[in-house]
Amino acid sequence: MNPKNFDFASQIISSNYLEISKEGEQQYQKLIRELLTSRSVPLEGLSVRTIKRIILDLSSLDTNNFLNNIGVGEREGRIFSSYVQDRMSGLSHGVGRSGDVSAEQPKAAGSSLIVKLTTRMALQILKASGLTSIKSCLILPLATGMSLGMCFLTLLSQVKTKKVRPRYVIWSRIDQKTCLKSIISFGFEPVIIDCIPDGDQLTTDLESITTKITELGQENIFCIVSTTSCFSPRVPDRVVEVSKICKSNNVPHVINNAYGVQCSTTTSLITQATKQGRVDFIVQSTDKNFMVPVGGSVVASTDKKLIKRLSQTYPGRASIEPILNLFCTFLEMGMNGWKLLLKQRKQNFDYFINQMKDFCLQNDFTILKTPKNKISFAISLEKYSNLSKKNKDVGMIGSMLFRRACTGQRVFKKGIEKQIMEYNFKNYGAHTKNYPREYLTLSCAIGMTKKQINIFIKRLQSVIKEFEK
Amino acid sequence: MNPKNFDFASQIISSNYLEISKEGEQQYQKLIRELLTSRSVPLEGLSVRTIKRIILDLSSLDTNNFLNNIGVGEREGRIFSSYVQDRMSGLSHGVGRSGDVSAEQPKAAGSSLIVKLTTRMALQILKASGLTSIKSCLILPLATGMSLGMCFLTLLSQVKTKKVRPRYVIWSRIDQKTCLKSIISFGFEPVIIDCIPDGDQLTTDLESITTKITELGQENIFCIVSTTSCFSPRVPDRVVEVSKICKSNNVPHVINNAYGVQCSTTTSLITQATKQGRVDFIVQSTDKNFMVPVGGSVVASTDKKLIKRLSQTYPGRASIEPILNLFCTFLEMGMNGWKLLLKQRKQNFDYFINQMKDFCLQNDFTILKTPKNKISFAISLEKYSNLSKKNKDVGMIGSMLFRRACTGQRVFKKGIEKQIMEYNFKNYGAHTKNYPREYLTLSCAIGMTKKQINIFIKRLQSVIKEFEK
Amino acid sequence: MNPKNFDFASQIISSNYLEISKEGEQQYQKLIRELLTSRSVPLEGLSVRTIKRIILDLSSLDTNNFLNNIGVGEREGRIFSSYVQDRMSGLSHGVGRSGDVSAEQPKAAGSSLIVKLTTRMALQILKASGLTSIKSCLILPLATGMSLGMCFLTLLSQVKTKKVRPRYVIWSRIDQKTCLKSIISFGFEPVIIDCIPDGDQLTTDLESITTKITELGQENIFCIVSTTSCFSPRVPDRVVEVSKICKSNNVPHVINNAYGVQCSTTTSLITQATKQGRVDFIVQSTDKNFMVPVGGSVVASTDKKLIKRLSQTYPGRASIEPILNLFCTFLEMGMNGWKLLLKQRKQNFDYFINQMKDFCLQNDFTILKTPKNKISFAISLEKYSNLSKKNKDVGMIGSMLFRRACTGQRVFKKGIEKQIMEYNFKNYGAHTKNYPREYLTLSCAIGMTKKQINIFIKRLQSVIKEFEK
Amino acid sequence: MNPKNFDFASQIISSNYLEISKEGEQQYQKLIRELLTSRSVPLEGLSVRTIKRIILDLSSLDTNNFLNNIGVGEREGRIFSSYVQDRMSGLSHGVGRSGDVSAEQPKAAGSSLIVKLTTRMALQILKASGLTSIKSCLILPLATGMSLGMCFLTLLSQVKTKKVRPRYVIWSRIDQKTCLKSIISFGFEPVIIDCIPDGDQLTTDLESITTKITELGQENIFCIVSTTSCFSPRVPDRVVEVSKICKSNNVPHVINNAYGVQCSTTTSLITQATKQGRVDFIVQSTDKNFMVPVGGSVVASTDKKLIKRLSQTYPGRASIEPILNLFCTFLEMGMNGWKLLLKQRKQNFDYFINQMKDFCLQNDFTILKTPKNKISFAISLEKYSNLSKKNKDVGMIGSMLFRRACTGQRVFKKGIEKQIMEYNFKNYGAHTKNYPREYLTLSCAIGMTKKQINIFIKRLQSVIKEFEK
Repeated sequence: MNPKNFDFASQIISSNYLEISKEGEQQYQKLIRELLTSRSVPLEGLSVRTIKRIILDLSSLDTNNFLNNIGVGEREGRIFSSYVQDRMSGLSHGVGRSGDVSAEQPKAAGSSLIVKLTTRMALQILKASGLTSIKSCLILPLATGMSLGMCFLTLLSQVKTKKVRPRYVIWSRIDQKTCLKSIISFGFEPVIIDCIPDGDQLTTDLESITTKITELGQENIFCIVSTTSCFSPRVPDRVVEVSKICKSNNVPHVINNAYGVQCSTTTSLITQATKQGRVDFIVQSTDKNFMVPVGGSVVASTDKKLIKRLSQTYPGRASIEPILNLFCTFLEMGMNGWKLLLKQRKQNFDYFINQMKDFCLQNDFTILKTPKNKISFAISLEKYSNLSKKNKDVGMIGSMLFRRACTGQRVFKKGIEKQIMEYNFKNYGAHTKNYPREYLTLSCAIGMTKKQINIFIKRLQSVIKEFEK
Repeated sequence: MNPKNFDFASQIISSNYLEISKEGEQQYQKLIRELLTSRSVPLEGLSVRTIKRIILDLSSLDTNNFLNNIGVGEREGRIFSSYVQDRMSGLSHGVGRSGDVSAEQPKAAGSSLIVKLTTRMALQILKASGLTSIKSCLILPLATGMSLGMCFLTLLSQVKTKKVRPRYVIWSRIDQKTCLKSIISFGFEPVIIDCIPDGDQLTTDLESITTKITELGQENIFCIVSTTSCFSPRVPDRVVEVSKICKSNNVPHVINNAYGVQCSTTTSLITQATKQGRVDFIVQSTDKNFMVPVGGSVVASTDKKLIKRLSQTYPGRASIEPILNLFCTFLEMGMNGWKLLLKQRKQNFDYFINQMKDFCLQNDFTILKTPKNKISFAISLEKYSNLSKKNKDVGMIGSMLFRRACTGQRVFKKGIEKQIMEYNFKNYGAHTKNYPREYLTLSCAIGMTKKQINIFIKRLQSVIKEFEK
Repeated sequence: MNPKNFDFASQIISSNYLEISKEGEQQYQKLIRELLTSRSVPLEGLSVRTIKRIILDLSSLDTNNFLNNIGVGEREGRIFSSYVQDRMSGLSHGVGRSGDVSAEQPKAAGSSLIVKLTTRMALQILKASGLTSIKSCLILPLATGMSLGMCFLTLLSQVKTKKVRPRYVIWSRIDQKTCLKSIISFGFEPVIIDCIPDGDQLTTDLESITTKITELGQENIFCIVSTTSCFSPRVPDRVVEVSKICKSNNVPHVINNAYGVQCSTTTSLITQATKQGRVDFIVQSTDKNFMVPVGGSVVASTDKKLIKRLSQTYPGRASIEPILNLFCTFLEMGMNGWKLLLKQRKQNFDYFINQMKDFCLQNDFTILKTPKNKISFAISLEKYSNLSKKNKDVGMIGSMLFRRACTGQRVFKKGIEKQIMEYNFKNYGAHTKNYPREYLTLSCAIGMTKKQINIFIKRLQSVIKEFEK
Repeated sequence: MNPKNFDFASQIISSNYLEISKEGEQQYQKLIRELLTSRSVPLEGLSVRTIKRIILDLSSLDTNNFLNNIGVGEREGRIFSSYVQDRMSGLSHGVGRSGDVSAEQPKAAGSSLIVKLTTRMALQILKASGLTSIKSCLILPLATGMSLGMCFLTLLSQVKTKKVRPRYVIWSRIDQKTCLKSIISFGFEPVIIDCIPDGDQLTTDLESITTKITELGQENIFCIVSTTSCFSPRVPDRVVEVSKICKSNNVPHVINNAYGVQCSTTTSLITQATKQGRVDFIVQSTDKNFMVPVGGSVVASTDKKLIKRLSQTYPGRASIEPILNLFCTFLEMGMNGWKLLLKQRKQNFDYFINQMKDFCLQNDFTILKTPKNKISFAISLEKYSNLSKKNKDVGMIGSMLFRRACTGQRVFKKGIEKQIMEYNFKNYGAHTKNYPREYLTLSCAIGMTKKQINIFIKRLQSVIKEFEK
């Protein structure tokens, strides 16, 4: 209520009581002011009630929510379904304009504010998580695969004047389809560099990368894609060294940092890479790092202009939902909440490994030594290596866990050959042609709790027992 | 409640009363059964309460919503914010898998069902709206611009084996940035074909298209993009003829049918085109046709395999939200509701024009004769042609309306030159280099009401009065 | 957002776009102003989005919703459950104070405003529905039974000084337990006056009432309770005549007008009664008239002081929910919506009777002639009078309908004797000791639709068919 | 989804994925089964999502929510407002029937189940909180004042046969209006027994009670009302002794235990009273103990029949909302959550007092010694006793705190005379005619946090500073 309406209200109820409400209202307006001026994640998380009010107040700035709006165009933010209307709080115009996906919309000042604020908050959160050298970021309402593609299109727009369009993307192999597909779908030819062993670990084959550049010709290399979050025994790519290669060869470098924001070791590695070599885009998933539904990613860069160009490369408007979810999450979590989550993840990772050490001791397993992977670890299933003769298959362990409502574990089983588009992969799942052992990979990602770890181990125990019967 | 729980409940309250509830429950299960077996939009719309229950029941099939789920992976559908959780009813895994954006997700059977059902419903709705020849469709959680881009990537995947990659996209000019940008951003070179006059109307320059194909070489033409929904005085492209040219020249054809689903004249035109010539993809906006928030589009084709390929071209997962919004809307609207909306739009379009005729008579304006545009019409502002000397600008009419909470009107003002990327447009806004008159364009899109039309005309009257002062 | 925050926002996005939003915001503030100054139901209903915003803005005036509130008392409006918090929009302090259930609460200015506004709206709605002579009303968060009790307590507070406390409540019999129980539970002795026939109709036995007053002594009569909404063949009590008796005997008169607001014949009858005789309180249900969940009633009077006293008789606070539901309903419905509902009910009542006439003709039934009941009508089941020999029971017709998801029908079956507390009723259900026929009673209450009427008749047909087999 | 629909779904998506969903669904059905069979608060609290699903599933058992319901009565659970519909999840029939407010409703099996389950949960929670001897309870959708009144009506129904209706209610004075009003409004005459000092404490004047019984005649005493939760320096009434007096004099005893459930000292005191003497009803607020919005109370008794009679005394239906709020809260809190809250309150009370001791030392105040009050404590304002000459008023301290968004503190100021109805109170606020000191009372009620305590003390410090200026 504005001050005048407070006056009118005081003709209905005592102005004494309203006086204190006025001050209460000022507290709220002060909070909004702080949001608008600091453009930061609040230190302490806000209540859902307050967040809903903020969303409602901001969405009221969009023309389609005006009480007297008349639309005589073709895209007027009309919402037929009252349930959809409620879900979206009337935010209907999406984000962006035809010229720029981060542009303000004349018809939707509220949506535009949400986009701007959330982008600033995301930048702040990324920096607070260790990506200290980045200067700008863009939240795309696209998951990481499509976002990688948009990064490629942006880089493409910079090489258009070149006579020959470079066609090769050098890609340090990670056995997850999306990244490979984004290279191929967006019209490039992947050059797959298998990982190489480093003890139990699998790491980047820098030598092969350099060799390939020479072999194919620097001018034909569109970019290099490295990955910093992955399942053990693969460890984050050696991005510092890769970025140096990129710099010295003048080749763009895109880092697929899907869920690496939650791990300070990874983010500081990337920061070093940006300082010592060349990194064009760093792509991170919103769902994997910030616990929102799938559908968004944050692309960051040390170069503001690159982000601006990315934003301008995106044709047309897009859904506001992934940004809205992030906005609500940042507000509900607060900076303190985020830092607590990071701290707890670290502690829980240690706890998980320690508990699994006991489990392994009791069950005659070993944990693979992959100290460079701080999110995931693997248990060798070597002891079952002769099982297949008995018609048993270690892959069953995964599905038995799944049937017990455990999700996310992965069992690597030797000998799986897989074709993705026209590319063949031996020992798919292992990120390399040969890995000596079969294993079970587990992660301790952000949001996991000690209680869940304990329950998981119990279920794993019962699965192992049944499997070994 | 399952039958056993009904039994337990009857130890608390009278089984007589529960007996009737059991039958009530069966009615609900019957509704679900009909949804699952017919996979159609229900004839009559459902209540929000029922829709919410359906969403909650379906989302309960996703692993992240199990009461006992433990996630040991990196993407486990965790939702931090309780507000986001509520908004999304716990639908957190998005849609698709790395291999196919319409693939089922092992972790998310409920989300997968929603995707499948909504896709079938969308196909049914498109057919019921006149796109009778289409065989398959895909709902992309992308607005039309990006969806056009994805169509291009899909077509690209088919020409990869060609020695020379065709680079030209022939584009019948429409002065709306997005489509042009999707051509350029995705790495192609637009060949812009200005519209030509047909009385007051602006229509497709078929001759120039043919000439250009010959000139540039058929093998260098990647595809032709035509547009079937646009602002008067431009009218829908002559897609039947364009598709014949495509067929005879073996050139793919993508139709940008952004908001044409709401107009049966347009959809029957497209259907003819698919029958008489070549149409690869037909792209329609979800927000402009179905009144959901911006962020989705439906791509349809007469070729099932093409849609499958489009689906496989999309790398990785995507947000479920645009599909969820469509699902809710289809359920709330019902087939009867949709047909009523189509009918009302048609009636309201006639009503709007008739009311405007009176308005024009009284105010000495004329309506441009653009009978082939059944969604939009334009009022000539010729009578103000000498105004500019008096320091007045017809563009003001648009902004004066905007300030009166009218949105969507467009004023075409001569002489605006605009550069988009490296392309120059004379008389931007008119879809052609020369249009003899300035005008105000208005639309009667789906969802507009007679009451709104009446209010708009009053506001326009007051604007005109002020403008002429 | 307040003007200052608009300024801060304009440092983030273009002030041009915000300018129009500011005007949009003013439209909303204007709506609030109109609510606060007119204190009336808006002419046109508001959207749910707007209502939610109003509730959120008003509830923000309550101290428990301040961002910085600290409670050091025992009742601080804390809400544990986030779901409850959301359901109630943070409205936690209830209504009233220890001294007066309609008093403003120092801690809850927003709740207090909602109470005051809704009360004024209710008064306006009652007047617009024909209770033109009333001067004041109170919305009690109690259903009609308890509200009658509170009226009794209020009347009791006025006779406390009398030496002998009058103990008899004369009650024109209606076979619905609640009213009788409210008399007995609150400590009075009912004097039951059976209805008398008037053709098929059952009406008030004025003579017996007068006789009883003389017999028991006027000074021993606490009050008379009459009922104006009831099931055919009973018709509304002859309240004009009863009120005259009350006036001439100086006996208070309470009218149980449970669902009579929806019927202008009834309300004008009551208005006459207030003018020609004595009416102290008129009690109406909120759920039955305004389609809100059960739990509230509106008590009206032509005497402001009586309502004030009623309000002061209520000890302590009460739930805000019934008032909140009414507030939301009035806002969503608008005055036009309410009037439309009244009109439709009338039309549907006629439609129902006409359709049933056809049905009766075809099935050899007759409709009882009860023209004074404008909400309900009854179908004679006389043709089944010999059925009982065949082991069939007309009561089955009711339960067969119930099993077909029809609710609210009542079958009167002769010979039921019922004891309520220490009182015996012969032919319970018929409002009199002897009624010559068995019958099925049906109502056409507010909110019923033609479609429902048609479906009901089909189901009745199938029931009759099965019953007669 | 029922098993058949799972089968139909498996024609759309892979039955493998649905298999696990089926097990997920069974987990949910198992939870429901546990609720229905144990009828207990779950050990661990449930998620809001699960609670919403439970509510939706239960409310679907009510006839008004059937997809095919047709109502031909006058009260059919119709809900006009879509917002109200959503708020109430379609629970529209309220609770109870005309005969019994806890009776099952034929039209509303779901609502009835909620009532039954919540009542059982409330009983369990009360017992777990120390009221171990109670046998039955009833949740009334009435705050404590009205609930006391309903207890009186119930007791009245038991003495109706007596020739002389006993009229006096002996009431150990507590300066809170509601209880007094419930005595008077319901037609009784309060006999006010001032508290007497016990050191700084104010406690029950047992002697005067006994004297009064003799003086007025046992047969004229309707009941005694004692209070067990109150503001320091008053302490809980000596209910053990009072109940002995009641027993020996055959006088009913009602304990107003408004917010005593949160304090084990209080509940064990009451338990002793029920064992050693006579206690008919124990009344507790739902909002003050369980942090739900105002509007409900739980009445408990060691005598099942008394509770049954109370339930039958209530005339007609009532709102389900207070029960629904409690149901949601119990589910969200879980038994462990409740126990944690109790434990934290105790710790926080000690913390508050300890912090205030420091505060008092620094500011030259003293804390009154009231060890028998375990919820509230008071700070003597004696040092300001000469202030009034300087035109300053200790009452200002309260309002200064209020203006700083602190609520619930109470300042006792000498010399306030207050008339409530026809009763005069000297030194109102002090529960006795003479209390030697002025003071500030503070509580540490359930839900208060350490953080809030710290902030409060800072604000108090600033208030004191300003006040002493």
